[in-house]
Amino acid sequence: MNTVETKLRDRGFEIPAPAASLASFVPTLQVRDLVYISGQLPVKDGKLAVQGVVGVDLNVDDAKKGAELCLLNIIGQLKAHVGSLENVRCVRLGGFVQSESGFKEHASVVNGASDLLIYALGDRGKHVRAAVGCSSLPLGAAVEVEAIFQIIDAESPAERLREAS
Amino acid sequence: MNTVETKLRDRGFEIPAPAASLASFVPTLQVRDLVYISGQLPVKDGKLAVQGVVGVDLNVDDAKKGAELCLLNIIGQLKAHVGSLENVRCVRLGGFVQSESGFKEHASVVNGASDLLIYALGDRGKHVRAAVGCSSLPLGAAVEVEAIFQIIDAESPAERLREAS
Amino acid sequence: MNTVETKLRDRGFEIPAPAASLASFVPTLQVRDLVYISGQLPVKDGKLAVQGVVGVDLNVDDAKKGAELCLLNIIGQLKAHVGSLENVRCVRLGGFVQSESGFKEHASVVNGASDLLIYALGDRGKHVRAAVGCSSLPLGAAVEVEAIFQIIDAESPAERLREAS
Repeated sequence: MNTVETKLRDRGFEIPAPAASLASFVPTLQVRDLVYISGQLPVKDGKLAVQGVVGVDLNVDDAKKGAELCLLNIIGQLKAHVGSLENVRCVRLGGFVQSESGFKEHASVVNGASDLLIYALGDRGKHVRAAVGCSSLPLGAAVEVEAIFQIIDAESPAERLREAS
Repeated sequence: MNTVETKLRDRGFEIPAPAASLASFVPTLQVRDLVYISGQLPVKDGKLAVQGVVGVDLNVDDAKKGAELCLLNIIGQLKAHVGSLENVRCVRLGGFVQSESGFKEHASVVNGASDLLIYALGDRGKHVRAAVGCSSLPLGAAVEVEAIFQIIDAESPAERLREAS
Repeated sequence: MNTVETKLRDRGFEIPAPAASLASFVPTLQVRDLVYISGQLPVKDGKLAVQGVVGVDLNVDDAKKGAELCLLNIIGQLKAHVGSLENVRCVRLGGFVQSESGFKEHASVVNGASDLLIYALGDRGKHVRAAVGCSSLPLGAAVEVEAIFQIIDAESPAERLREAS
């Protein structure tokens, strides 16, 4: 069965265990069928894996891998919250790229998160997005991504069938 | 009939055709009656028209015109999604201004978007807002604006009547 | 009765009168039971009280006090909108910290807002959050915080009871 998890595993991605928040907030919060997810950093095995100013300390390709890590951590939080990844669709990603004036390739960097999400969830991964440049990010991260997902219940089977076709 | 479109035309603004996204995401996404709109840049006729660091490469007035362009592109996306601009109200604008430490006039810049929206939609254009400074923006844009709108259906005619008075 | 207001007063915080917006937008807007609140600055008695680049012009502790002020202004807007603070819960905070490359303590700064909110509202204060660094902020503020709250109505008493235990 070609589930979200097997799709990710096919490309060598394991869904991480959800990390505790860095601070005084919660990683996920649900209002009706919407799940809000706190900003996630490119953390792997408990350590910040991708840091610095994109275009200065690391290149766009490495930053893109950082955005993938952020997305995997989002998926990890979402799975822990919802239980399954088969009945969710993404609403919005907010992508923040640590960068200096003159940097222009935010879209390419944040595509690391968007492309992986659409690969894993198909049409249910399509989302709106804002990508911007930040002078600094928590812990020195190169990228941060936050998200809103919608849980699709049994009342709307059409949403899920669309992806199967 | 003084519609949103004629109001904009009266001031010399044409609603642009909606542009495709720069990247792996969609320009608009609807959850129930809310329409989320991806971050829009000051693009005109397919080209980035207002770029650079506000306060260094361009002044506040020019940046404000950039915010107007972002808003027109938001309106263009919204019209393409909803079909009409007569039954929508704005919930929130997020405004991002490329700028350096010491820049303080974010409110004036993003007012380019807020003022035009309120001019075009009247009370239905009133929105909450966060305006912040960014070290860089996609393609080198001077301004980026994202939005959430609500579609007002026939069940809530009072919302529409209020503007008519 | 240990209400939100008395809790805040116990720590020496007075809920400020809601300030008018700096610009062409509204401070609060409600969609169904969600109340969106515009980005609030560390303003006290009508004056910007905490400004500059965190880590350069002021330290993390002073910036944290700035985040507390932003939160108090959010609470002030919320109280003016809803009338009471006893039937609300926080959904999301967005925290923006004016800072340069190399600054890493965003979480500590924005905790000024998050900790005070959780102190005042208990479990109803728990929220998701994104904290990022900005090259500049309106008026030169050191911190800006925006928020989404949910009004909990009589249909969901369990939410309120949980905090009492």
